[in-house]
Amino acid sequence: MNAFPTTRLAQMANAIRALSMDAVQAANSGHPGMPMGMADVATVLWAKHMKFDPAAPGWADRDRFILSAGHGSMLLYSLLHLTGFEDMTLDQIKQFRQLDSLTPGHPEYGHTVGVEATTGPLGQGISMSVGFALAERMLNARYGDGLVDHRTWVIASDGDLQEGISHEAISLAGHLKLNRLCVLWDDNEISIDGPTNLSESTDTLKRFEAAGWAVSRVDGHDIDAVDAAITAAKTSDRPVLIACRTTIGYGAPTKAGTAGSHGAPLGAEEIAGTRKALGWSHGPFEIPDDIYADWRSAAASDAHAAWCDRLSASDLAGEFVSQLSGDAGEAERAALTAWRLQVAADRPDLASRVASSKALAAIIGDWPGLVGGSADLTGSNLTKTPDVGVVSAESYAGQYIHFGIREHGMAACANGIALHGGFRAHVATFLVFADYCRPAMRLSSLMQQPVIYVLTHDSIGLGEDGPTHQPVETLASLRAIPNMHVYRPADALETAEAWEMALMRLDGPSVLALSRQTLPFLRDDGGEENRSSRGAYILRDTTGEPDIILVATGSEVGLAVDAAAQLAETGIAARVVSAPCIDLFLEQGRRYRDEILPPGVPCIGVEAALRYGWDALIGSDGDFVGMTGFGASAPAGQLYELFGITADAIVEKARKRLSR
Amino acid sequence: MNAFPTTRLAQMANAIRALSMDAVQAANSGHPGMPMGMADVATVLWAKHMKFDPAAPGWADRDRFILSAGHGSMLLYSLLHLTGFEDMTLDQIKQFRQLDSLTPGHPEYGHTVGVEATTGPLGQGISMSVGFALAERMLNARYGDGLVDHRTWVIASDGDLQEGISHEAISLAGHLKLNRLCVLWDDNEISIDGPTNLSESTDTLKRFEAAGWAVSRVDGHDIDAVDAAITAAKTSDRPVLIACRTTIGYGAPTKAGTAGSHGAPLGAEEIAGTRKALGWSHGPFEIPDDIYADWRSAAASDAHAAWCDRLSASDLAGEFVSQLSGDAGEAERAALTAWRLQVAADRPDLASRVASSKALAAIIGDWPGLVGGSADLTGSNLTKTPDVGVVSAESYAGQYIHFGIREHGMAACANGIALHGGFRAHVATFLVFADYCRPAMRLSSLMQQPVIYVLTHDSIGLGEDGPTHQPVETLASLRAIPNMHVYRPADALETAEAWEMALMRLDGPSVLALSRQTLPFLRDDGGEENRSSRGAYILRDTTGEPDIILVATGSEVGLAVDAAAQLAETGIAARVVSAPCIDLFLEQGRRYRDEILPPGVPCIGVEAALRYGWDALIGSDGDFVGMTGFGASAPAGQLYELFGITADAIVEKARKRLSR
Repeated sequence: MNAFPTTRLAQMANAIRALSMDAVQAANSGHPGMPMGMADVATVLWAKHMKFDPAAPGWADRDRFILSAGHGSMLLYSLLHLTGFEDMTLDQIKQFRQLDSLTPGHPEYGHTVGVEATTGPLGQGISMSVGFALAERMLNARYGDGLVDHRTWVIASDGDLQEGISHEAISLAGHLKLNRLCVLWDDNEISIDGPTNLSESTDTLKRFEAAGWAVSRVDGHDIDAVDAAITAAKTSDRPVLIACRTTIGYGAPTKAGTAGSHGAPLGAEEIAGTRKALGWSHGPFEIPDDIYADWRSAAASDAHAAWCDRLSASDLAGEFVSQLSGDAGEAERAALTAWRLQVAADRPDLASRVASSKALAAIIGDWPGLVGGSADLTGSNLTKTPDVGVVSAESYAGQYIHFGIREHGMAACANGIALHGGFRAHVATFLVFADYCRPAMRLSSLMQQPVIYVLTHDSIGLGEDGPTHQPVETLASLRAIPNMHVYRPADALETAEAWEMALMRLDGPSVLALSRQTLPFLRDDGGEENRSSRGAYILRDTTGEPDIILVATGSEVGLAVDAAAQLAETGIAARVVSAPCIDLFLEQGRRYRDEILPPGVPCIGVEAALRYGWDALIGSDGDFVGMTGFGASAPAGQLYELFGITADAIVEKARKRLSR
Repeated sequence: MNAFPTTRLAQMANAIRALSMDAVQAANSGHPGMPMGMADVATVLWAKHMKFDPAAPGWADRDRFILSAGHGSMLLYSLLHLTGFEDMTLDQIKQFRQLDSLTPGHPEYGHTVGVEATTGPLGQGISMSVGFALAERMLNARYGDGLVDHRTWVIASDGDLQEGISHEAISLAGHLKLNRLCVLWDDNEISIDGPTNLSESTDTLKRFEAAGWAVSRVDGHDIDAVDAAITAAKTSDRPVLIACRTTIGYGAPTKAGTAGSHGAPLGAEEIAGTRKALGWSHGPFEIPDDIYADWRSAAASDAHAAWCDRLSASDLAGEFVSQLSGDAGEAERAALTAWRLQVAADRPDLASRVASSKALAAIIGDWPGLVGGSADLTGSNLTKTPDVGVVSAESYAGQYIHFGIREHGMAACANGIALHGGFRAHVATFLVFADYCRPAMRLSSLMQQPVIYVLTHDSIGLGEDGPTHQPVETLASLRAIPNMHVYRPADALETAEAWEMALMRLDGPSVLALSRQTLPFLRDDGGEENRSSRGAYILRDTTGEPDIILVATGSEVGLAVDAAAQLAETGIAARVVSAPCIDLFLEQGRRYRDEILPPGVPCIGVEAALRYGWDALIGSDGDFVGMTGFGASAPAGQLYELFGITADAIVEKARKRLSR
């Protein structure tokens, strides 16, 4: 690695401080304190230890750097600029927090090259980093040290560590002995409200040790000490926490060490004083050529070229590149199609969670990059397929992860796995506990990561566990998230289709909401076409124009079919529309939507959930058969009766409507 | 305390085991393993240490027992039955998990007397218990040991401790030195997936020590050891964790110690074997009289009577009873009305978060039972009013709590404070971080607890922090929760009204979604009536019938008013409806709703958020001016332009609509 003298590194760090305070000042908003406090640590890391190539930001074997404390985004932007990431020009730095700049308030994955993960919501970065570190080990187990041998570095704040998700993440990382994960904690003893001791008395080193981490403490402004700690971290057999005691806003004459430097511009006078204190005599946004030269030389390395040579020489090169691409290959696609056709032929009556399990079992042999797990509901979610290997500290070669009762950490871990590349991740819990995953699910959507959420026990149909476990508002709350596709399949074939859609999707997450209870097989079309692909379709039509349309999802589609049959006996022509993915349906063109739900024909929505959001399909004058509040504890059949979600209730609503 | 011989206590514990396994078997679903494993610990606690009076379940100074591992509900129901809670008859036990029974799958507050909190979603109970323990200390600080001197006991499972929220809760409890909180951890080394070491390697005792807790470990079937540990816990100066090493399904010949006893009936044969192993020769649901007698004698105590005497003799009795009632007194009501009238007279242009701050400041002197805090966003949420005292381990007398960056734990703590009684709790963070609080918010709604969520920075109007911090789907996701009232006030007067509504509400939670940016004062009516009370109302009307109606909330109401003025100039009569609480409006009768939004008049909804859920107001053929996806990082004004949320855009939509 590069051998810069300590004094030189200190000047390189000052470049970060200067850019950060100048950019925040120009934007008149932002967070100068953290970049200024962690500049020394970041400089040691990026100049002496990180393996990366600014000319090849997507290099598969690069070290990953996650700025969990995303509000300190100017730290990352400064590093990208100084090390020579092409897009990150000085103009972009000057445009910090402005519209269309590459330097938004918080780092955004997919928006800015070199940003590995969108961060800002605290705790997410450190938790995604566990997924990164796990993906690295899983890929290493498949392709060996020659192709996969990198580290995940995290800068985390007090807030990241106070958030509950950090507990789930660090205990999982400790359990899995992810020793290539290193968290540099910005231990500056300051949070927004003031000194951290206003709300915090935890012995953080002891806490991490309890979770199975190696820990050390350094003065974050002692460059040699930081260097030594990072060097030591690279030989650990466990994940590593380095507590870096820093001064927030380091260098600012009156605001350093105070909450005053955390989240607001320092002001012209304070900035002038900082320049003086740091011995930084250059103007705003002015970086001397020799500092640029040092940073560029620090970023230069032949590691990437050597790796490329190893890849070229490897027997596994083709497979590796293909797995990294993330796209489904021919075998994967063929497996999905074959399974769809087989289900259509077999016509099994199955709980959709069971249908999901069979779909996974049928395809997983052809999807080596498909990994996933459950938050301690393996026997309920049914995503552990027969003969699949379990990922553990002893072997990372498996495809199933026991996440423990850590829904939020699990979802963030899946985001990390997806962002890392090489794997598609599915994670599972009960639908109602999507609430526990929600901040991470929002990030899946925002970062356009194709994480698959398998959420079973999707209604009062779960029965006796009662209202704490029965989702009623959960489907609505998930459909409301932009870019989240929520599937609620009606039978085994729609379940196969949902898996196919979710796995073929590359630009966003999918939810599979699945029933605990058995559902009748409903489809007669042979499965040649994935009918779920347009979100909703006509499952049972009338011969002429329909008098009324029954729009249902999941376990209630069968009820709608029964109701339509009853209505037909009394001369009422009811079309049944199955809507496995309302989000996708609403994205279809007006023509298709009007074909399925012709304007003017009255609609009845049927779903064992709240009406909230349904008016977009059925109109505000439409009728709805579903829930109006929380559920109750009783056998499922009794609950459907109690809450009036039955074929009879649909028939009655239809008759009433048509007699108006 | 009662001095039962150890052997007798073991028999009393066996009664819990027998009832639990029999009830689960009869229901053909449920969780026998935990009650059977923790029966000894629970017996020692309830028979020898807990202060309670089955005849007065609401006694203010009773110890609180929180079954965080709510799936083990039969443990609690057995205890309530055996100790003589009147409603908990043997018939109710036999009706376990059946419709309308008092013995639902998970304990439900408000449904079953003796259940202090609804539990089941893991981590919530232990986190609410921190609120209980804090409320006790806060009440003690006001009324002294004579009236307030009780403890909070928790039984928690591995799952409770794996959940991230537990980290937030225990670190807050440790920081606040809540020494009257004792967690009995059911350390049975089994979770649903199998042995806990499938996913867990944490040194839990060390973890709790790091959080500032006193810890000990006992054999959970050694009654004397458990007794000693609990006795010692009562003298601790810190919260206490007792790790109780137990055998799940204790007594079951083949299933004890395995995941097989966790969540399913044992089966007739295994139950017979258990009876034999335990030396319990009685039939199903049969408890011998002498066991009943012992349990009743254990529950008998003169502590309640003595406390009543102290209350009668206390100068503070009136005040105490009044504060405990939870209802607003005359002074509180008067303060709210006075503030509403003053704001109406002053007509200030204020960010609604500032208006909220002033409202709180104006009334808090008359609301001694009003406490709250922020998740480290005190200066942003503005709920810390001048001169208010801060709650700390040194003094619990204040009204403001620095919760730290622990949104989820904060919300659960607020639930605990509300359930405990004596206080009204408000908690604050950014609106987008409601996602972090969501499982606890759902419980506020389900338990009908009037927690007030002050959620500021409620739209793209927060500007440069970008899409991670800008809620777009959050309002919809909260409105979707049954019994949650979501207010988004348009000006300072509506903000005062929202606080008034939220504080006068006793049967459920409220959200106040507040702007970062300044909002113009809009109301001309003098504030005599709380116009927000019906959810939506006509803010600006036309002289004749309106051509079109603009329905807006919060920061966009001002835009609608401007648009209506522009439209008036071109001869289009636009009514402006302000809808500060859509939930409340949709609960109004058809007559009122039709008066505000007459059928047939086209509507345009205006809200800087997604349309999701709005069709219920504006019809699926209504127009909408708002967001269609995630936000962006830039100054707020530019974002409103970028996303087309402007008076001009409303005017254009209205013209287009009327020219169709």
